[in-house]
Amino acid sequence: MKTAILIYDGFTALDAIGPYEVLRSPPGWEVEFVAGERGEVRADSGALGLSADRGLDEVTEADVVLVPGGEGNRKLLDDEEILSWLRAIDRTTTWTTSVCTGSLLLGAAGLLEGRRATGHWLFLEPLRSYGAEPVSERYVEDGKTITAAGVSAGIDMALYLLGRELGPEAAQAVQLGIEYDPSPPFDAGSPAKAPQPIVDAVTAIARGG
Amino acid sequence: MKTAILIYDGFTALDAIGPYEVLRSPPGWEVEFVAGERGEVRADSGALGLSADRGLDEVTEADVVLVPGGEGNRKLLDDEEILSWLRAIDRTTTWTTSVCTGSLLLGAAGLLEGRRATGHWLFLEPLRSYGAEPVSERYVEDGKTITAAGVSAGIDMALYLLGRELGPEAAQAVQLGIEYDPSPPFDAGSPAKAPQPIVDAVTAIARGG
Repeated sequence: MKTAILIYDGFTALDAIGPYEVLRSPPGWEVEFVAGERGEVRADSGALGLSADRGLDEVTEADVVLVPGGEGNRKLLDDEEILSWLRAIDRTTTWTTSVCTGSLLLGAAGLLEGRRATGHWLFLEPLRSYGAEPVSERYVEDGKTITAAGVSAGIDMALYLLGRELGPEAAQAVQLGIEYDPSPPFDAGSPAKAPQPIVDAVTAIARGG
Repeated sequence: MKTAILIYDGFTALDAIGPYEVLRSPPGWEVEFVAGERGEVRADSGALGLSADRGLDEVTEADVVLVPGGEGNRKLLDDEEILSWLRAIDRTTTWTTSVCTGSLLLGAAGLLEGRRATGHWLFLEPLRSYGAEPVSERYVEDGKTITAAGVSAGIDMALYLLGRELGPEAAQAVQLGIEYDPSPPFDAGSPAKAPQPIVDAVTAIARGG
């Protein structure tokens, strides 16, 4: 199985690297990082560069395509080269997936029309403008599309995908290999669980307030 | 606060990128990726390149140093250039940290002598040879050293570190920002929880069997 992960300037690194670490693990599974053109792509912090080993024109099929989020993708929502590539690769995939605001890009490409989908909790409503039904879940499967919630949710989504493809034992082996036995020191990872003043503060920062 | 993350050929990407995504988030916190020399460093899968923006000789102090794991570090356990750098940077840090088998490198540098420490569940016992007391916990603070368990544990450890430095509200805000509300589809992330045949299989693979 080949997974193609689309990266672009201003993507959020953990959105991509969480699922990468899962999907690169089973024997015979490989991952390729793809961008508009080959070369270094900088993450949203500016402090991290990843190599795109392939340009879009070099990747014409994949078993899994994964689109990470990141504020850099807002300017790609009308980038016809990217959107055409997503539509073309989607015709070849078994699974078309996104993490965080990556679902906005899938939506802009027309791939979420009539589907239930999720994304970062701050960016669920915009999915409606692409004909999707926003759902507040950790990950959402609808047809061959699996969308994940914000940033860290890609790890859960990728393990779920492995389970769907290879069965629970293979997914559990990968989970054990990456020792994914999460134990966050706080319980504030969703707006339903975080104290309201913290939800308000994070919302204000995201809105540029 | 400046975090220096040491990367090297054959490191495990999520070990580094999980904590990076946490430690780069608070206002005024920055992260630098450091390697033997500037340039591209390939992760253990071979399928991913990260940019080291700094060479070792360019980074002489840091508030936090973080050492990821990965099988590529076995050949560095007697690399005096790396070990000397770790000892020197440790003299400047507030926190000296590792994820997964990164604790072997801290141990080889002499930085875990007499300390409680952890790492990937398959590589705890080797810590004894460096004078450390291996502990099977998600992360372990001893003095200014914080070591984390395998791969994904770096996210938990980094949130804990933020809480220690900035208080719980700041750490909770970052947790909410990265929507770290983990919900793995299976409960097999530690050898105590995974079915025994899966523990045996993963152990055999790791032992080259």
